[in-house]
This record gives sequence, C-alpha cells and structure tokens, in this order.
Amino acid sequence: MLTMTSLTLYPLQYEPLVRHALEEDLGRAGDLTTNAIVPAGVQASGRLVARRQGCIAGLEVAVSAFRLLDPHLTVVFHCHDGDVVDAAETLAELRGAAHALLVAERTALNFLGHLSGIATATRRMVDAVQGFPARVTCTRKTLPGLRALEKYAIRAGGGANHRFGLDDAVLIKDNHIILAGSIKEAVRRVRDGVGHLVKIEVEVDTLEQLKEALLCPIDAVLLDNMNAAQLKEAVRMVDGRVITEASGGITLETARDIAAAGVDLLSAGWLTHSAPALDVALDLEDLAALQD
Amino acid sequence: MLTMTSLTLYPLQYEPLVRHALEEDLGRAGDLTTNAIVPAGVQASGRLVARRQGCIAGLEVAVSAFRLLDPHLTVVFHCHDGDVVDAAETLAELRGAAHALLVAERTALNFLGHLSGIATATRRMVDAVQGFPARVTCTRKTLPGLRALEKYAIRAGGGANHRFGLDDAVLIKDNHIILAGSIKEAVRRVRDGVGHLVKIEVEVDTLEQLKEALLCPIDAVLLDNMNAAQLKEAVRMVDGRVITEASGGITLETARDIAAAGVDLLSAGWLTHSAPALDVALDLEDLAALQD
Amino acid sequence: MLTMTSLTLYPLQYEPLVRHALEEDLGRAGDLTTNAIVPAGVQASGRLVARRQGCIAGLEVAVSAFRLLDPHLTVVFHCHDGDVVDAAETLAELRGAAHALLVAERTALNFLGHLSGIATATRRMVDAVQGFPARVTCTRKTLPGLRALEKYAIRAGGGANHRFGLDDAVLIKDNHIILAGSIKEAVRRVRDGVGHLVKIEVEVDTLEQLKEALLCPIDAVLLDNMNAAQLKEAVRMVDGRVITEASGGITLETARDIAAAGVDLLSAGWLTHSAPALDVALDLEDLAALQD
Amino acid sequence: MLTMTSLTLYPLQYEPLVRHALEEDLGRAGDLTTNAIVPAGVQASGRLVARRQGCIAGLEVAVSAFRLLDPHLTVVFHCHDGDVVDAAETLAELRGAAHALLVAERTALNFLGHLSGIATATRRMVDAVQGFPARVTCTRKTLPGLRALEKYAIRAGGGANHRFGLDDAVLIKDNHIILAGSIKEAVRRVRDGVGHLVKIEVEVDTLEQLKEALLCPIDAVLLDNMNAAQLKEAVRMVDGRVITEASGGITLETARDIAAAGVDLLSAGWLTHSAPALDVALDLEDLAALQD
Amino acid sequence: MLTMTSLTLYPLQYEPLVRHALEEDLGRAGDLTTNAIVPAGVQASGRLVARRQGCIAGLEVAVSAFRLLDPHLTVVFHCHDGDVVDAAETLAELRGAAHALLVAERTALNFLGHLSGIATATRRMVDAVQGFPARVTCTRKTLPGLRALEKYAIRAGGGANHRFGLDDAVLIKDNHIILAGSIKEAVRRVRDGVGHLVKIEVEVDTLEQLKEALLCPIDAVLLDNMNAAQLKEAVRMVDGRVITEASGGITLETARDIAAAGVDLLSAGWLTHSAPALDVALDLEDLAALQD
Amino acid sequence: MLTMTSLTLYPLQYEPLVRHALEEDLGRAGDLTTNAIVPAGVQASGRLVARRQGCIAGLEVAVSAFRLLDPHLTVVFHCHDGDVVDAAETLAELRGAAHALLVAERTALNFLGHLSGIATATRRMVDAVQGFPARVTCTRKTLPGLRALEKYAIRAGGGANHRFGLDDAVLIKDNHIILAGSIKEAVRRVRDGVGHLVKIEVEVDTLEQLKEALLCPIDAVLLDNMNAAQLKEAVRMVDGRVITEASGGITLETARDIAAAGVDLLSAGWLTHSAPALDVALDLEDLAALQD
Repeated sequence: MLTMTSLTLYPLQYEPLVRHALEEDLGRAGDLTTNAIVPAGVQASGRLVARRQGCIAGLEVAVSAFRLLDPHLTVVFHCHDGDVVDAAETLAELRGAAHALLVAERTALNFLGHLSGIATATRRMVDAVQGFPARVTCTRKTLPGLRALEKYAIRAGGGANHRFGLDDAVLIKDNHIILAGSIKEAVRRVRDGVGHLVKIEVEVDTLEQLKEALLCPIDAVLLDNMNAAQLKEAVRMVDGRVITEASGGITLETARDIAAAGVDLLSAGWLTHSAPALDVALDLEDLAALQD
Repeated sequence: MLTMTSLTLYPLQYEPLVRHALEEDLGRAGDLTTNAIVPAGVQASGRLVARRQGCIAGLEVAVSAFRLLDPHLTVVFHCHDGDVVDAAETLAELRGAAHALLVAERTALNFLGHLSGIATATRRMVDAVQGFPARVTCTRKTLPGLRALEKYAIRAGGGANHRFGLDDAVLIKDNHIILAGSIKEAVRRVRDGVGHLVKIEVEVDTLEQLKEALLCPIDAVLLDNMNAAQLKEAVRMVDGRVITEASGGITLETARDIAAAGVDLLSAGWLTHSAPALDVALDLEDLAALQD
Repeated sequence: MLTMTSLTLYPLQYEPLVRHALEEDLGRAGDLTTNAIVPAGVQASGRLVARRQGCIAGLEVAVSAFRLLDPHLTVVFHCHDGDVVDAAETLAELRGAAHALLVAERTALNFLGHLSGIATATRRMVDAVQGFPARVTCTRKTLPGLRALEKYAIRAGGGANHRFGLDDAVLIKDNHIILAGSIKEAVRRVRDGVGHLVKIEVEVDTLEQLKEALLCPIDAVLLDNMNAAQLKEAVRMVDGRVITEASGGITLETARDIAAAGVDLLSAGWLTHSAPALDVALDLEDLAALQD
Repeated sequence: MLTMTSLTLYPLQYEPLVRHALEEDLGRAGDLTTNAIVPAGVQASGRLVARRQGCIAGLEVAVSAFRLLDPHLTVVFHCHDGDVVDAAETLAELRGAAHALLVAERTALNFLGHLSGIATATRRMVDAVQGFPARVTCTRKTLPGLRALEKYAIRAGGGANHRFGLDDAVLIKDNHIILAGSIKEAVRRVRDGVGHLVKIEVEVDTLEQLKEALLCPIDAVLLDNMNAAQLKEAVRMVDGRVITEASGGITLETARDIAAAGVDLLSAGWLTHSAPALDVALDLEDLAALQD
Repeated sequence: MLTMTSLTLYPLQYEPLVRHALEEDLGRAGDLTTNAIVPAGVQASGRLVARRQGCIAGLEVAVSAFRLLDPHLTVVFHCHDGDVVDAAETLAELRGAAHALLVAERTALNFLGHLSGIATATRRMVDAVQGFPARVTCTRKTLPGLRALEKYAIRAGGGANHRFGLDDAVLIKDNHIILAGSIKEAVRRVRDGVGHLVKIEVEVDTLEQLKEALLCPIDAVLLDNMNAAQLKEAVRMVDGRVITEASGGITLETARDIAAAGVDLLSAGWLTHSAPALDVALDLEDLAALQD
Repeated sequence: MLTMTSLTLYPLQYEPLVRHALEEDLGRAGDLTTNAIVPAGVQASGRLVARRQGCIAGLEVAVSAFRLLDPHLTVVFHCHDGDVVDAAETLAELRGAAHALLVAERTALNFLGHLSGIATATRRMVDAVQGFPARVTCTRKTLPGLRALEKYAIRAGGGANHRFGLDDAVLIKDNHIILAGSIKEAVRRVRDGVGHLVKIEVEVDTLEQLKEALLCPIDAVLLDNMNAAQLKEAVRMVDGRVITEASGGITLETARDIAAAGVDLLSAGWLTHSAPALDVALDLEDLAALQD
C-alpha cells in the first residue's frame, strides 16, 4: 500500500535552521570540553531514545545536526515522524565520530524534543475527539523562526494546518470588522482584492454576528470563545454551508465536548506556544569498549 | 538610586530576529486581510496587556515589531522587563498606523508571550527558594535560534544564566569522563587546553564521583539527579570549595527542598523548553471613533 | 472616499532586494566614474519620467534606492502605482545628493522599468477584456527572486494574483493525475492532507476530463489550451459551480474572445516572464546652474 | 581541439540563487499538491525540451534545482549552453525522485527560459550583423539580483559583456560632463583617480562632442542614439584610435545597418530587460508505467 | 576649491561589516562587564586619538560602530581619511551613551587601526618615491572579507588600486602562459573572450618574455622580481607603449631605487597583508565629573 | 599515543568564510583570465609550500577553498596546523581541476598566510619565554570577521586564548572602575550580575590598585604597562591567589624578561593585528606535461 507524503520535508527546508542552531551552540570557540578531552578519530555509537511516551516529530531534522558535523554518519531509523512511541523506546541508532555525537547532541535534542512535544500534544487532542468528525488545528501563535517546523509537527501529530501566515488565506477579525463598518462590507472589500484561490474565514463572537456572516460569500467561520451549547447552536445555524472552527481556550479536557457540538475544526494556540517538550535523549554506547 | 543594566539589549541584537519573524508572517503576499480592508493612513491606538499575572520579558523586543512597520509609532511604557504585573494590567500604550498595529500584532505577541512565559516560570522558582541563598539558573535546552533572548528572559525573571553555548565554559559530563578514563584525566586535559578565563564544572552522579572531582582543580560541580538528602551531604563534602549546582527534574514543587539542602544553584531545563507562554494581548481602541 | 490598500508594500518587504541590487551594481569599488568626477556635497534635482505611455508599478521601490544612499532625499510624487501615465509624464521629482542620484539611477530604473512593464502589459489585457466579467491573472512563471514584486505589479496593473507558490493553494496537474490514477483519487488524497483554508484547482485538457473533475469537491478548474468554442462549452458545463480559469497561449489579441466565452479568469505567464520593460528615465536638472 | 571555457560557471556562483528561488516557490508549507498526491519513493524520468527554436543558456543552472532536492538525480545532457536547438529538441534527460522533478520544475524552467530567452535574442542580433566586425554587447539594464547570470546568457548567445557594474570600468555620461564642466576635465579627474587596469569610455551625443573626446586619453566612445550615417562619420573620425560602441534603440531590424557603419560594438539594453523567455518545458515520462 | 571624492564610501558599503563585527564581539550575552557596572542613561564623551604618527583611514567606518549602538551620538571630526596626523592628535570627538562608547570601542578601533595601518604604510611608500612618476599600488593579497575596505585604505594613503578581483581585469601569469603554450596564444584567447572595457596585463619574469609580450596587444606588463637594473632596461624596451608595473619583494627601503628605474607602478602585497596596525585609542573624558 | 584535539575546527565553522572570500575574489564575472585561457577538463597538481620558516595554521581552511570549486580534489597533507616547517617545505599536495587550483589559489593563500603569520609570531613568543611557566595569550584586537580563526591560529602557535568577546568573561577596565567609583564596587556589581561560570579579571595600572583589587573576589588581574621590576613585585603581592597577566607593549625582545618576573600570562595584541603574513605559495606542477 502506498504511503502518502504530507510529512515531506526537504533538507533544503530545514538545514539552514539546523546549521544556525549549531552555530548558536558552538559560538566562536567551539566545544571547549569535547575538543580538549576527546581524541580525534574516536568513533562512537548511540541511540536516540524517548524517555516518555509520545508522538515523534523532527527525527530527520535532529539527525541532520549530527550529519552536518560528520557526513559519514550512519543511521538506522526505528521509527518515523508521526509514530507514537513508548517510554524508553529507541528512535534511531547512530554511528559516527564521537565528536559529532557529543557536539551536536544538544542541538539535535532541542529540535526533537520541541517538535515531538507539539506532535504529542496534538496527538492527544486528536485522540480526545476520536469518534467525532472534528479535526484538530493550529494557529499563528508559533515561536519566531520555527513556524514551518512547528506546523509540520502539528501534521505529524495528526492535526491539520491552519494559515501559515497573513498571506495564504483571509481571516477577518473583530478589528477588521470595526474598521470596515460591518462584516458584509469587510467581506466585500476582501472579495474584490484577493485571488481566486484564497479562502475567507470570518471570526465571530456571537450567534448574532454569525447570522450576519452567513449572509456573506465566505468559506469558514471561526467561532470564538463559545461554549459547547453555543457551538451546537452555531453548527445548527451554519448547516454545512461553511466550515466551522471552534477556538479559544480549548484544552485536552474540554476538547471532546466541543467536538461533540459538531464543529469541523478545533484550533488551539497552546499546541505550538506552550506544549511541553517531549523528554528525549541520546544514549551513547560502547565508549568504554572503544577506549581499549 | 542607580539601576544596573544587566537587562541591556541593543536593537542590533534582536532586530534581525524580529525582522525575520515579520517576514515569516507576511510571507510573499503580505497581510491579505488588512491590506484589503483597512484604508491607508488610518491611525489607531492600542494597549499591550497581560491577561494573566506574570513577569514581563521582551517588551521592547515586541514593540520593535510594530516600529519596523511604522517608524513614527509612539509608545508609552507602563512597565519594564523584569516587572511582575497583574492580570489585565497595561504594559504599554501604542499609537500609530492601524496597518502596523494589525499586521505586527501576532509577531509582537509571539515574542512577548514566549519570553514572559519563561520569565514568569523563573520568577516563580526564584520566589519558591526565597530565604535560601540558592539562585535559579537555566540550561542549553533552548529553542533553536532563540537562545540569547531566552537567556535574557531568565535574567528578567530574576534567574542567573548558565553557559550560553559550548564555548564559554567547560562542563565535563559522563561521556567525557568515560572517554578520558577518569575525572582527573578529563580535568587535566581541559586545564591544558583552555584559556585562563574559562571556568570548569564537572557533572557527578554520585557522592563517590564527587569525592574524586573535589581532588581536581575545578570551579563547580553539577550534582545530577540527587535527592535533597544526597544534596545536603554533597554540600557538606564540598564545604564551600567549589560552586554547587543541583540539576535534574527540579520543579516548582521540589525547588524549595532542594534549595534547603544548601546548594548554590538550581538549574532547570523546562524553564526554557517547556514554560507555557504568558497570555498577552493587544487591545485596540477607538477604532469606531476613528471611523467617524 | 476611502482608498483600499491592496497595493500596500512595507519597506521591510522590498528594501533587502533594493539593497542587494545596489550592492550588485556598486561591486567592490563603487561608482568609479562618479566618485572621481563629482565633488562631495553637490546637490542635484531630477525627475523620474516615463518615456512611453504605461501603467506604473514600483515607484516607491525605485525611490528607496536613492534614499538608501541619501537618507535626506526629498521626493514629490506626481503619481502612484497603478496609475496610467502618458509618454513624457513626470512620475516623481527628487532632490538630494548628486552622488545618490547618479549612483542609484540604474538600480532604481531597473526596478521601475521591469515592474511597470508588467503592470502595463496587465493593464492592456485588463482593458482588452473590458465589459466581460473575466479577470486577468498571473502564474508562477516569474523571475527568480522577484516573485512578490512581480505579483504586486500584476495587481498594480489591475490584475488578480494566482498562487504565490506551491504552498498557498493546490493545483492538480496532468502528472499528478497520472500518478494518482484519476482526478477523483488525486482530489481525495489532497482533501485529506490540506488545511481548511486551502483551495483546490484542477487542470483539465479536455471536456471529458472536466466532466470528471466536476464530480469532485473542488474550487476551480484550469481549462488548459482550449479554444473559445471549447471554453464556452466548458463554462456551460460548469454552470457557476466552480471558478473557471482559461490558460495557455493567451495574448492581447486573443484575450477578448476568450473572455467572451464567459470564463472567470484568464491567466498568462508572459505577463511576468516576457513583458517588455517600460521605458523610464531619470532626467537630472539644473546641473549647470548648480555649478555656478 | 580545445574548447575554451568563457562559459565557466561554478555552482558556488549560482547555487545560492537557485536555492533562494526554490525557497521562494516552496514557501513555508512546501508543495501541497505533490506532497499530498505523490507517494514517497516514486522515481520518474523526464526530458527538458525546447518548445521553440532558440539558443540555450542556464542548462546546468536549471538542473541544479532538481539536484538540490534529489542529490542522486542522474542527468544526460543532449546539448550545452550556447548551442542553438530546434523546436521540440531534447536538452537533457533526467531521472530521479518524482517529488524532485515535480517540485523543482517551475524553478528550473524559470531560470532556463529567462536565460535562454536572452541568449536567443543575443544570438539573433549576432547573426544579424554577421559579416561585419561588430560585436553585440549588453548594458547594466538587468533585472535586480540576476545580473551575473544574464551577462552569462549574453556570452552564451555569442555576445560580449559590457561593464558588470559601476566599479569595473569608467563610463562618463552627459551628467558627469556637465558636472565636470567639459569632457577634458571629466577625463582628467578620472585618470587621476582610477587604477591602471581600468578603461575609460565616454558617451557622446554629437560629432562635435566626439571631436572633443578624441583629444583625451580614453579607450572607447559610446555613440549615443546616432543614425547609420552619423555613425559612419564617427567611425571615420575615430579612425581606429579608440573602440566605438553604438547604442540607443538598436533592434534586430536596425542592427545590420548600424554594424555596416563600421562600429566595433552594438549595445542593446532590451537583450536583458525585455527579451521574451524561450518556451521550455519538462516532459515527464513513464509515469503510468511506474504506477504498475 | 573642489575636493574630488575618490574616497567616497556609502554606509551601505560598510555597515554590514561593522554590524557583523559588533555581533562578533557581543556574542550571545553582550558586554557582561559594562552591562553589570554602568547604569543605563549615563552619557559620556571621548576622543578618538592616534598614539603614533600616521595616515588615517576608516574614521567614518569606526564611528559607525558607535552609532549603531547609539543613533543619537554626536561627532565632531578633527580630520578626515587620507590626512596624516601626529602622535597624540585627536581624530574625532564623540558624545553619547556611555554604554555605546564602551561596548563599541574595540570594534571601532579594530577597523580604524587596521585601515590606518595600511594607509600609513602606503603613504610612506608614496613618500619614498616622491619625485618620480611611479605610483604605489596594491595586490589581491588581502584579508578575507575586507578587500574593499583595504583597497580603500590604499587610496587613503595616496596609492592607486590594482584589480579588486579576478573579474575586473586580466592578469596573465606564468601558469596561464604554460597552459596556453605561449604568451601570444594566451593573449589571443583572452582578447576573444573578454569585453571591450577589460584591460590585459601580462606577468613576465625575464626580458626575453617581455620582448614576446610586447608583440601582443596588451595594456600593461608586470615585471616580476626584477632588480633595478633589469627594470631600467625593461622600461627602455617598453618605451611607453604599455604600462609598467614592478612587483616582488618591494620594501620601503628598495622602493626609491625601483621607482628611479622609471616604472609606472610599484605594487606590494605587504601593504594589505602585513602592514602593522596604527596605534589608535579612545580616550574617555569627564567620567568622574559625570558621576556627580 | 592519543592526540588531543584543541585544534578541532568543523567545516561548518569556516566554510561560510571561505565561500565568502571566494565570492569576493570571483566578483560577478568570475576569473576572466583563467576562463578564457584554460580549457575545461584540464587536470593539474600542485604543492602548497612555505617560502619561509614558520608555524602553520589554516591548512585545512585553505584547502577547502580549492575543494569548494572541485569537490573531487585529492589532497595529501605533509603537515598539520601547529607544525613548524622550514622554508621551501611542502605543506600539502593537491591534484584536481586546473581551474580550481588557479581560481582558488589567492583565496587559499590569503587565509593560510595570515593565519600562519599569527601562529608563527605566537610560536616565537612561546619559544622566547621557554623555561618559565608563563603562557602567551591574545586579545580582542583582531581583524573584523576573522576573530575565531585568528584565535585558532594563536592556539596553533602554542598560545592560549583570552576572551573571544565581551560576553564570555568579565574584564573590568579603568573606565568601568571610574564609573563604579571603586574596584570594590565594580566587582560587587559584576558578582551580582553574572553567571557562576563567568570569571572576573581586573585591569590595574599600579601596585596601589593591585592591592585594592586583591581584596575583592576576583579570578585574575591584568597588570597593564608595568615593567619587569613592577611585575615582579606584583607577582609577589599576588602570591598565587589569582592569575596574573602582563600586558602592554610586549614584544619578542621584552617577552623573556617579563616572563622571568613570574607572571602566569603575557598578552600581546600585535599577534593578531600586526603579525606579518607567512610567505606561502602554490607551486603548480606538470602543466607542460599535461599539455601533451
């Protein structure tokens, strides 16, 4: 059976970031400790492991950090991005220059832990709404410079991506509505200005506003900070004409009730800005043996 | 009274990051929504506010995002980095082009929320150990590309900085010790290789190892994953000869007990990699009034 | 009356390109001729003029080249991007350091001529289809590094933007269909993978394919290389259910007939990759007078 | 027989541009369509073909776009830069990851079409002046960021390069002359200021000015906007003492007459700023076969 | 009287280098010492002074380092690039934030000392050959990344610039001659390949080779490692037909004899790669007074 | 026996600099001479040689310049960084594309000559103080952009590194002391502000100041511009409690006397800012033979 590749990432897309992160850690003088202690030419092998159960994202990104220091590194992958692993499970085995393993360790783990943390949180929310058609999605509340990778981690966790920026879809918010005078006028202005492949979503705070929005040619509504009952009524009003997105303070605890209201999407900013890192580590092996 | 300036940051140090974050959000086409809806020349004013109590970090960084789009922006600061603010408190008042306020909002908040989240977590741990001499410090478990700002947020929260990278101090870990054969040999190799302004810290897992480390000319010991009792004994053994740092799984709950053991420093990776963002927002004002 | 701002561009978005173009022209040694001949401190004034009738785009971009060399430059704009000007018409008056005017002249004109050339071609095609609802749009056949500005010039000329890249909408082409096995399967795979704000367009070569496409949940069809009669039939078949885009070899001569077929959009790659530059110049004034 | 290598380009010189162009097209989210539809690991083969007769430039540049996504790509070149090919002729055969071929296609073609368009225009003008000693040359009217490649395309088309920037030769224009007071004074100032390997050209509008210029120690004259008769007289006056360059509105139609006047060089800005792209394409093969 | 501006440098040309040098010195944590000790808001004034007699180059470059940290810095220049100053002479007075003066001091002085060192060495060699027509020139033996500024310093010292790179003139060396088979063939190949504004220089080791070179259409000869007598004979043979450049081990001691041989140019690599820095300093004033 | 690796440098750390230096030399048009004369495909071999006795640094950095143009280059190293070689000694043999060898030659030699010049000067000073415990160290008086490599060259020459920037240690100078009011207050402010792995050095001009400094919790003293007798007294006063560094005008001639005073370190700025380049060259071989 064919595996679709919505988790495709080219090294071109992440290597500059990894390179920059390595430079950030090496500074001007390099790894003082390893350079002074570890003889050149020593080989080592190690395993990237998860210390806790979680959903993996960024494994190839992490491995690229080692490879940028040792192009001859060999890797055996035990899992792939999107897989859920148990605590203590091996993610990948690495063999290469001891220097590369020691020097790139922290950089690799910083990527892997952060991205897997996001994937794990997403996975949990996806699981929480299982049985309902609702999909879990993200926001633009991402960490500066890391948006593309964080959105990738959302996909790895089984979520769907929202806008990647201000330029790939229209989201009309309260301030836009105030400045335009009405939802209708805001939508009209946008319709005139954007291309035919741009979708339009309108954020509404009340069912009153929703009613107004539904009179306009739009693709989706963001139902902001509504409770399950309000959402249920909103979904009824929309009746499948546009996509419905629930947003605002949704947690793992509240997700299921909100999904039960029948919305198409649940979005949560905390998935990217506040998901705790997954605890991952590099366990080096055979160092003593190598010393003989 | 004079205010010392350990929170000094020059725009030179953060503007490239902010500029990059704006580019990340603007993409190739810019803000489709605002460009289509908001007439050129409209002015607006708004307030950066905290939605929850917390310690602020990154306020000038955040404001620079608006200023990069509107150089004539005026700002009145109500607080400064390092201040603890209450929920609903105004951090700064901004007045400038409506476009700049709407377009840079998310970028500014992403910086401010993340950095204030770190400062807030740090502040809480600092408060938790109050009364003891122990200082709170960070690790190299930072998010790629953001290390300098995250370390700055640690200082804003009242913490102290650990190494900024592999190159500004020596930290001898278990793998280094294995590869050198002994702590003594590892320290000897390092002493020969590094400059006179570089300090040396050794990570030890047991009191046995600590004893060996204390025979070497070192500046600090990292006491890894020890409980309060072990730490107390370690501090007794060290007897002020070197700096003592407790590390490994320290939380807001366990911090006080660990500080009570008498160590000089508590370090915690989660302050930078897993502290939840502080909820901050931009409240625009007078938009309706401006429409008249 | 309010002017909408779909032509908004921030200096942040174009200054790096202008800076790079100046560096490309200055090389390592700077302007050998001007440096040797023109005394420091000489002021000059000049007018950016169009040598031929055309639609202007990139005027502020061009002016920024002068300003990067003389921050005290004063400018009086006689027109704005999107305006159609006559031959010999003045676009802007500049006054500043003679060095800045002479050194940045070519860089400024290279931007202005290229972008106005695109806007002019677009404007002509928009005029050609006047009276029909069809809008003129562009493609991804742009010059490397200049896409955002070229797409901006399309808007200045009265056109609408198509995709800015591979990532802001889905366009299923023949090869995708072959690899998926059918249009239906291709659309299914995409629907599963992309976010709710991403639109889907399918390229079809025949009415047969169009029929298949219309059975799928898509937003637009690209009718490739069809003649006016085929397009008319296609529009009839679509019957307003999805957006229709005619593409393939459309010229100023054929545009009107194609628009008459009733399609929503005409797209043409040559607008960006082959539109001749508009002839623009910088006429310096008063140089002799300044010498007295 | 030896082939000289004035068409030498190192990947170092163009890869950053190609990388940037790929990033421009991939955006933050990558190729939504291909990622969703094409399974990982599918191989494909294709041919870069010319849809019209023309002179090729940028073939290796174009191929590098595919290689940056698939380092294992194999290529068989059927021609090289500078070759004139017929419509439908294959330029190169590629075999590699289907993803790489689909994703890099547009970027590769944008380079190849633009550069081959310039080479083709140049080649036509070179052919137009065949039999006369005049060489065809370019100007600084290039597209921002692409100057080195466009000048390369001029060479591929059989043309010669003019200045690459303001810093590699002196070109004294009307404004310089006005500011210096006379051609003589302008040349004197330059002679004093520039190195011994810098040549000096003076732009003259009239035969009167030419007379004045010929009294000065210069290397070349640019005869601006003169007709064939004036050029003939100018060439007679110069009598081989300096290089003569005709410039100003030279087209494929007028080139031969101008060359017949005996000038050494014809320069034309439109070769770089307005030459239409050559129609090139990537024809994928065997996709259906590969599906079995 | 008018001052020509061959020493023109735009901030655009050097600010990125100065910015990078500041970043190199600030590292990730900034100026630990100044940040901890100097209160925010303290103003200071200081003088850039020369500790030894020398020729100044890079004064505005140096000042820009301070200005990048304090845009409100005020500066009074006491001299300009190209001036020869005495020991203890003040170059410029600065007033601004104490932080800016302390933090940028080393960066500013590193530029000023290095460039003034080159200018001073050049000036001395220019003085050494006074009375002879010979000009002093440089080579491509420059420090990586600093070539444009070092060449500028050569001009500030009264010298002339040689090639800025491999691309702005032709210099045929021994290996090129061997690979071409003869000087004649090497020149022929080059003449065919390069533009009309590119000059050609040939390096010769013997008078025999010089004779061969003079039969070719070239612009200059580099007389490599010849003594004064040989050079005299070479100048006689050349008899003004091409420019003559003496090169190879020329020092301040030997320069006059070589100039006396009648060559047009003396080139010396050590001016850029080995000239000792000029001793310059920043003397802060009034600090005690400011404390009151 | 094991070789420690304090001379470890990853290509990641220097390749961007080498790449930039090549671009600086290639300019926009590339190597006009080699491109016109040397046929594609010609192979050549050559030897990097030292023309004078010296200590080598930057050999792999230099070789990377060739490799960036010819990835298939083969290299046999005859020595390594840190080795002292005789005049005429071969450092490495290279075989690869003649183009790569000719084009990258100057870039490679500029790195190798500059860094080996620093290493050689350092080695001489290290030799001069042999028999005394004093180590030789550097300063922040480095050339903009080259600090990390220059500090590396200091290590290659047997020296030790001082601070790499303002951020990896504290150095309290006279102006800091004036602004703080006293050494004691300056140290107090710093102690409060910096992390536990940051060392503190105080610069003193007099023995009086030294006395004051020794009452503070510091790690090192910089004894500025003291003569041998004063240094001897200073060392006596310090009595091993802190590290002692002599600085100010130390030359190869005075170094031994100063070391004899018993200080731990001698620092000299001229090692990085004024050490003359080591004369190194690339001798190509077999070119005539290759022509057959």
